Amino acid sequence: MIFVMEFKVLKTDGSARTGLLRMARGIIHTPAFMPVGTNATVKAMTPEEMKEIGAEIILGNTYHLSLRPGHEIIRSVGGLHRFMNWDRPILTDSGGFQVYSLSALRDIEAEGVHFKSHVDGSMHFIGPAEAMAIQDALGADVAMVFDDCTPYPVAHEYALESLGRTLAWARTCKNLKKEGQALFGIVQGSAYRDLRIMSIEGLREIGFDGYAVGGLSVGEPKEVMHEMIRFTGSLLPGDSPRYLMGIGDLMDVLAAVEAGFDMFDCVIPTRNARNGTLFTSIGRISIKRTEFKADEGPLDPNCGCTTCKNYSRAYLRHLFLTREILSMRLNTMHNLYFYMEFFRKMRDAVSSGTFSEFRKKWEGVIRSEPGTEEGT
Amino acid sequence: MIFVMEFKVLKTDGSARTGLLRMARGIIHTPAFMPVGTNATVKAMTPEEMKEIGAEIILGNTYHLSLRPGHEIIRSVGGLHRFMNWDRPILTDSGGFQVYSLSALRDIEAEGVHFKSHVDGSMHFIGPAEAMAIQDALGADVAMVFDDCTPYPVAHEYALESLGRTLAWARTCKNLKKEGQALFGIVQGSAYRDLRIMSIEGLREIGFDGYAVGGLSVGEPKEVMHEMIRFTGSLLPGDSPRYLMGIGDLMDVLAAVEAGFDMFDCVIPTRNARNGTLFTSIGRISIKRTEFKADEGPLDPNCGCTTCKNYSRAYLRHLFLTREILSMRLNTMHNLYFYMEFFRKMRDAVSSGTFSEFRKKWEGVIRSEPGTEEGT
Repeated sequence: MIFVMEFKVLKTDGSARTGLLRMARGIIHTPAFMPVGTNATVKAMTPEEMKEIGAEIILGNTYHLSLRPGHEIIRSVGGLHRFMNWDRPILTDSGGFQVYSLSALRDIEAEGVHFKSHVDGSMHFIGPAEAMAIQDALGADVAMVFDDCTPYPVAHEYALESLGRTLAWARTCKNLKKEGQALFGIVQGSAYRDLRIMSIEGLREIGFDGYAVGGLSVGEPKEVMHEMIRFTGSLLPGDSPRYLMGIGDLMDVLAAVEAGFDMFDCVIPTRNARNGTLFTSIGRISIKRTEFKADEGPLDPNCGCTTCKNYSRAYLRHLFLTREILSMRLNTMHNLYFYMEFFRKMRDAVSSGTFSEFRKKWEGVIRSEPGTEEGT
Repeated sequence: MIFVMEFKVLKTDGSARTGLLRMARGIIHTPAFMPVGTNATVKAMTPEEMKEIGAEIILGNTYHLSLRPGHEIIRSVGGLHRFMNWDRPILTDSGGFQVYSLSALRDIEAEGVHFKSHVDGSMHFIGPAEAMAIQDALGADVAMVFDDCTPYPVAHEYALESLGRTLAWARTCKNLKKEGQALFGIVQGSAYRDLRIMSIEGLREIGFDGYAVGGLSVGEPKEVMHEMIRFTGSLLPGDSPRYLMGIGDLMDVLAAVEAGFDMFDCVIPTRNARNGTLFTSIGRISIKRTEFKADEGPLDPNCGCTTCKNYSRAYLRHLFLTREILSMRLNTMHNLYFYMEFFRKMRDAVSSGTFSEFRKKWEGVIRSEPGTEEGT
């Protein structure tokens, strides 16, 4: 049998935990942040730079890559790892969420979803079988089941019907699981506790290598999101990795780690970087602010990234205002480094039993951050 | 006396020559290609990468930097080198050409030029005194005189009048020359041989550290450009560096090196890279071409750049079509590496007395290149 993955919890601090996820292509320390490489590239970064900042796993997108360049092209040139020159693990999102959030037109059937490409308006179909075939062509280390994501709010009746589809599709995906590839199930059920329970029970019955929670951060209030994070976190099996999909706001991450989640992905650090919003030890700041015009200090004196070691706030502001490509590079490098460091320190805190102090400290920083609005 | 620069011709092959330009911040091997860093950044590249590919000097722009972020801001944070983290020589264009080519409205007076900023439409004034003050604030290693660039075609009478201004301004610049900064004169005179002679004689009388030829590649036919390259090349002093401004098409570079020019700058490699036109050992190719869709080979098997070592044509095409930032990075890295290698091999050819073979070989490659139009 081919080795797929092994997950071991190392330390716990309340429900928070650190762990090791061993895969054929490398070890992932959890709680782990997985930078998003939608189009077979983490925007603005090279794979070498991703390694420099300590990324152990990245995300790819079934939806995007099946449309451009096409998964069969990626298969024909040796798979996604070789295509993008990344030899560490890759987790691929199944496309369920993107079909929900990106395509203009969606027609859901029992077998899958007809949708209109956001690229050129052409019609496509993805169901569980297609999602598994695409993720096989890409050569993902971790595949995700194809799920039906519901909007918020949604009627209980519709959420139940949708969950039925998601569970049926999860079973199909499990039946099509490829040897050597890990497969994670996705918990749905909107904000309904009974449906979340039903979803988790259904997935456990099928059996997966890991369990993800989806269908959050789709418009619900933060209290609802946090309640669902706590609720699902307490019910997910403890001996498998727990992955909170698409959520990367630091306040949410802290709540989720406290609830026992192990894996995260989010475009926040990369997208914010391109918009000039940068994470620092005193909170987020907008590099546009006029006060940085002639500021020769580093963006964050407490940061060890190449951006902070080599460039001034004045220079970063100038690059941003002149829309230079280097602005997106240096900002992305910094924000991703910040996230990797944040997760590293968070793991240390869990290991040493000081996670609640860590959480309190960072919640204080975030609440008092200078803000991101442009100064005058 | 502060050491400014020393130029030594090493080898000649006909009128072509190799040389060493020693400056306080580093040695420049000539013929030299100077990548353009308009806004205090060579677009898409870090200074570390510029060093990796062997860039020994880069260009900055007086016009752009005086508008954004403002030269006094750059002075206040320690000068352009520190601002952009580049410790090798910088040559700054005086702004004469940009005022001519970029500003919507231009009003030329005896003391300088009133112009409308291409950024925000505000009115500004640059004359020789202002250009020297700006280049001093930036801390350029090589400053250029502020010149009046004429359009093509232009009446002899107007070109003569304009040349009078350019020479008067050159004298003012020389009088304001800062200790420790080299200053190059700029030859104007459009396509009129008598005016080019007059310009060169006037500049030699004033005396400069180097001599540049401007006012070409402004719309004149290639034959006229090449005739002026040969003509001015033969008249410029042989013991100083000869700089052909803004010209970097390889056919033109080959003609100019044959005519004895030593220094070049051009946005062609960087701009073409961003447009998907890539230089290779068989000529320029468009990375968009459909034939590259599933091509796992490197862009150029004869190239040693990091792009060619790590990525396939299929991947480069995909990144370009999805407009990823990494596309601009990898393409720029490749094109600049190609240029630096081209110049290195050209210097070797001059050194070994085989420049005319080198020129013939490359003219053959360029004439038979696969072309840059998109395939279907």
